[in-house]
Amino acid sequence: MNPIMNDAPQAPDGERNARDQLIEAASQIMRDGDTVDLSLSELSLRSGLNSALVKYYFGNKQGLMLALLERDMRNIVNSLGALVAKDFAPDEKLRVHIRAVIGTYFRFPYLNRLLMRLVRDASPDVSRKIADDYLLPISAAYARLIDEGVQKGVFRPIDPQLFYFTVTGAADRFFSARLVLQHCYGQSEMTEQMRDDYADHTLDIIMPGLLRAKTG
Amino acid sequence: MNPIMNDAPQAPDGERNARDQLIEAASQIMRDGDTVDLSLSELSLRSGLNSALVKYYFGNKQGLMLALLERDMRNIVNSLGALVAKDFAPDEKLRVHIRAVIGTYFRFPYLNRLLMRLVRDASPDVSRKIADDYLLPISAAYARLIDEGVQKGVFRPIDPQLFYFTVTGAADRFFSARLVLQHCYGQSEMTEQMRDDYADHTLDIIMPGLLRAKTG
Repeated sequence: MNPIMNDAPQAPDGERNARDQLIEAASQIMRDGDTVDLSLSELSLRSGLNSALVKYYFGNKQGLMLALLERDMRNIVNSLGALVAKDFAPDEKLRVHIRAVIGTYFRFPYLNRLLMRLVRDASPDVSRKIADDYLLPISAAYARLIDEGVQKGVFRPIDPQLFYFTVTGAADRFFSARLVLQHCYGQSEMTEQMRDDYADHTLDIIMPGLLRAKTG
Repeated sequence: MNPIMNDAPQAPDGERNARDQLIEAASQIMRDGDTVDLSLSELSLRSGLNSALVKYYFGNKQGLMLALLERDMRNIVNSLGALVAKDFAPDEKLRVHIRAVIGTYFRFPYLNRLLMRLVRDASPDVSRKIADDYLLPISAAYARLIDEGVQKGVFRPIDPQLFYFTVTGAADRFFSARLVLQHCYGQSEMTEQMRDDYADHTLDIIMPGLLRAKTG
């Protein structure tokens, strides 16, 4: 279930589009500007919609940010839950998950910043809800996945919470990587090839530290 | 040499203190607020100084942010250069460096955000200078260190630029870790024990991916 999206009654197609367009415009502003700050005027410019619609659909700017977070995070949480429940090798599950996280952050490089901004600035009950909706399910899935790997003798025992920081930290690089590339190396675009190279690199670096050394 | 600090003539003790106090107040605001946004009024409140001194010492708020960046980054750049030049095993150098980076980000969790904010918002020549002063020397030191390890048969050949992202990504977690801990686990403080546990974890995860497997 999607608690934020389902608060509103079923909207007719035009309205649904306007709502989605505002969310997508917010996403583009954050991605292109390496920022999680939104101005209503830029939002209006990008979406071609009157910024009063933000109030209509989301109550305020924070409501729009929460809807964007829901759009982008829901998929990670659900996919991770489904992946952990599947019946194949835990190290292979982890490789699939890490590639998925890197792919998601490549598309939505602001995602971790947006999450943290909302946790920081929202009222305590909204912060609590963000933790309950996204952070705790992810944390629980990591704990299950690591535990499964340890039980099956594939993983060393490690702290799943710290390991979650390691994975998010690796994926979160895309937020600033473009800036570094641009100013240090004169490259202005992150390509899909760079994403894949970075995913390979990350798996090469992370997995040996997690896998129990083969004996014999 | 320290290009930003040395722009000003030698200041008498009182002035030196006021300048340093403003930098330290900016540091505290960023650390305590999980933010790199500064307001002049909060700066004045924290430092007990008139915010007009920001204009006097730094020209503007960005000048103060650049001075803070210099204070916190200079040490990393210099230590890394000295470390790489030393005559001991490259894997041991890397362990020392990664612990130092994690220690620095524990003290100054805003550091990477501040760097990226300035690269993003400053004029092209200031961004260029930030790249030249900090990013390129660090990048060159990583290239040398990885190359030395590969030459000596200790490291697998890996991309030093991507590896720099991995290390910074791991250390950068302290910016948001406190928020996650607070809202998910009801812990409000990052302790030195947690820093050391996280450094151990990071080394355990990263080093095996880098070290060439021992044969025999």
